[in-house]
Amino acid sequence: MATKTKGIDTAIILAAGRGSRLNNSGRPKPLTPFLGVPLIERSIRGLYACGIKKFYIITGYKSDEVENFLKTLEQKLDQVTITCIFNKHWEAGNGTSFLAATQANLKNNFVLSMCDHIFEKELIELVVRATPPKRGMMLLVDKRIKNAVIDQNDATKVIIQEGLIKKIGKNLEVYSGYDTGLFVCSKEVFEELKELSPHTPLSLSDIVGFLANTGKARAIETTKGFWADLDDKGAFKRAERALLLLLRGKGHDGPVSRLLNRPISIRLSSILVNTPITPNQITLISFSMALAAAFFLTKDSYLWFATGAILAQLASIIDGCDGEIARLKWLQSDYGAWLDAVLDRYADAFLISAITWHVANYHSLGNLGWGIGILALIGSLINSYTADKYDGWMKKHNKTQRFRMGRDVRIFLVFLSGISYRPVELLIMLAGIMNTENIRRMWQLRTA
Amino acid sequence: MATKTKGIDTAIILAAGRGSRLNNSGRPKPLTPFLGVPLIERSIRGLYACGIKKFYIITGYKSDEVENFLKTLEQKLDQVTITCIFNKHWEAGNGTSFLAATQANLKNNFVLSMCDHIFEKELIELVVRATPPKRGMMLLVDKRIKNAVIDQNDATKVIIQEGLIKKIGKNLEVYSGYDTGLFVCSKEVFEELKELSPHTPLSLSDIVGFLANTGKARAIETTKGFWADLDDKGAFKRAERALLLLLRGKGHDGPVSRLLNRPISIRLSSILVNTPITPNQITLISFSMALAAAFFLTKDSYLWFATGAILAQLASIIDGCDGEIARLKWLQSDYGAWLDAVLDRYADAFLISAITWHVANYHSLGNLGWGIGILALIGSLINSYTADKYDGWMKKHNKTQRFRMGRDVRIFLVFLSGISYRPVELLIMLAGIMNTENIRRMWQLRTA
Repeated sequence: MATKTKGIDTAIILAAGRGSRLNNSGRPKPLTPFLGVPLIERSIRGLYACGIKKFYIITGYKSDEVENFLKTLEQKLDQVTITCIFNKHWEAGNGTSFLAATQANLKNNFVLSMCDHIFEKELIELVVRATPPKRGMMLLVDKRIKNAVIDQNDATKVIIQEGLIKKIGKNLEVYSGYDTGLFVCSKEVFEELKELSPHTPLSLSDIVGFLANTGKARAIETTKGFWADLDDKGAFKRAERALLLLLRGKGHDGPVSRLLNRPISIRLSSILVNTPITPNQITLISFSMALAAAFFLTKDSYLWFATGAILAQLASIIDGCDGEIARLKWLQSDYGAWLDAVLDRYADAFLISAITWHVANYHSLGNLGWGIGILALIGSLINSYTADKYDGWMKKHNKTQRFRMGRDVRIFLVFLSGISYRPVELLIMLAGIMNTENIRRMWQLRTA
Repeated sequence: MATKTKGIDTAIILAAGRGSRLNNSGRPKPLTPFLGVPLIERSIRGLYACGIKKFYIITGYKSDEVENFLKTLEQKLDQVTITCIFNKHWEAGNGTSFLAATQANLKNNFVLSMCDHIFEKELIELVVRATPPKRGMMLLVDKRIKNAVIDQNDATKVIIQEGLIKKIGKNLEVYSGYDTGLFVCSKEVFEELKELSPHTPLSLSDIVGFLANTGKARAIETTKGFWADLDDKGAFKRAERALLLLLRGKGHDGPVSRLLNRPISIRLSSILVNTPITPNQITLISFSMALAAAFFLTKDSYLWFATGAILAQLASIIDGCDGEIARLKWLQSDYGAWLDAVLDRYADAFLISAITWHVANYHSLGNLGWGIGILALIGSLINSYTADKYDGWMKKHNKTQRFRMGRDVRIFLVFLSGISYRPVELLIMLAGIMNTENIRRMWQLRTA
């Protein structure tokens, strides 16, 4: 029988600390925004994107404010329950906050995370799919001893032997890797911790060390994926820069996107991310700009035509921001990506149709103009139609596309032809390039 | 850690019998074609489609002919090895043929199939994913006591208790289901059979009965999926009718396809399946017909225009045959389905462009004609662009589409407008219907 490994669906997030090093003028740390999203919401959305539905949040400092915020958040997330547990001993260290979760009476293994640590999706998935030892836990350990975004002096270090955590602490001289603060725990782990007192000062590292003594603490080792411990303003800045940089490596970017659009859109996103604007709103703004561009392109004047072409290129740049904002804020959705793609098709179609109208009417080409324009239109739309399958095939065969022929190139050609006022040449080029590329794809994939 | 259940990759096929009941004028049964494909090739392709790569074929009657055929077939299938094992005692029954496979020294569990039994893919997948008992086997048992395609008198019956096969034979009065002839066996099953003699008359049922005595024979029970034992001419005819009927239930068929195109294309496929024509060749023929239709539609005469429209509808009907032939002959491929879809987009685009040309030039509509035509073109292409996602969503939510708006409807409208010579009305309708449907889909999926 096929066994489908069901991932873990429960998480405990420690959010009791004050975060005094942030100098936050009294705002509790879980509510401090990072890239426009409060830390606790960011933790929850990240885990939610990896299948977690049941959340237990351990609160402490200014628990009322945090709990009110979470009540609102719970409404926004489909099928999610968020239960707050107040740890009255929170000032005695985050170990006591973990012990406070005993009262949740968990029936399943669970993820344990810190509200002020951030993780890339692939790291969370690693943990969600892992199976912890009975009555024990597994800690995600970053084995890159040199890690750009981590403050080595302040980091908690770990010594691992054959998968078992042997030692944990901030002052180890020699060590195997860094404690990332992301765990997966057995549902019975609290039974193993019964003899620990929830009153006396206790850190989470103490608990890991305690479990390590009886071989109940294992490591999930990684050498890739981004994470950060947002301890102070400096860490915020470093993590922000790192996450923005990561947006550059986006999958199927064509040459124009890589060299021109993406660098600009990322800069724009770094500003927009701090506003309440949503990815779908950006999609609609970009689409509206393309519609306006199409309107200008139908006008019989160089100035209008060039303005339309420039506007089209701007729309194409802004069109990158929706995906970037979604990624930065954990707001990705299949629907959002699909809506963006469908509206891109309409935008492409209207732009090319407008230029065709222009050519047919003002360049006295008549039928010939319409014919070439329609071929450019067909080629462009079918280019997008074949792109999914083609990209998937290239990825599967580990081939990189030196010069991917896609939307970024198409719109850039519109831009160039617009400022040089060569609409006829543009349509001929688009008709030729796009249809040739489609035939090439049909030919290349025949052996796949 | 995620465990990925790897399916079984080895199969033994018994192909030693003479098939005397077929009255085959000396041709060995494995080489008898059914729906255009020799039985042994059909068995191999069916298992291959479910991940089997290593085949052991037990030959007997006219083994040379069968082995020559298989040598050629092996070349055609990617990554497949076919090893023939001659059973000199083949006339002593198919049980001895199974024992002859001992010498293959199999390292993995394997599927056991009969070359003259045919199975729908879902049944083979059921077996490939099953795990047989140690030193034993599992038999796929059809629990539909009344089964249209099966000859109840001739069928082998099985009595099951709590998953264990208790009794097997042709003359059981009361029984749980029918022996389908498809097994999954433990790699050590032959050790359990050591005391059986490979010389004396022995049927496969004897072997199943022998294993049943020690609880080593289990059942995989099914109440759906098509299969047949092709014992005589009558069974061939019945199975052919049943398989053709199954083509009707094809997934996303729209209303015109269901009521008009599919019934005709299935009839056509039942003839074409016995020729060497390939699915991809049919795709190209249908595409060429659509191109010719587009050419006729540009002509300024009712007769030419109507001819073009009729030809377009014929192309759309024939376009159903490629998928049907592929399914009937186990020739399905992702590439084939994709090529068909991409060429359909080009065919659609050329047909609508041709009608637009017609309207703009002969109905003195000029720019307005071109504009409406381009909207129809855009709407139609984006209708196909959104179809995959939309169909997937409808399926996931178990919704049936009473009236799916797709290519079949589009081409049928071309046909109707062609014979009634109303090209302007057609373009207005297509522009309206297709774009409305696209907007409706964007709206409906927003909550998905």
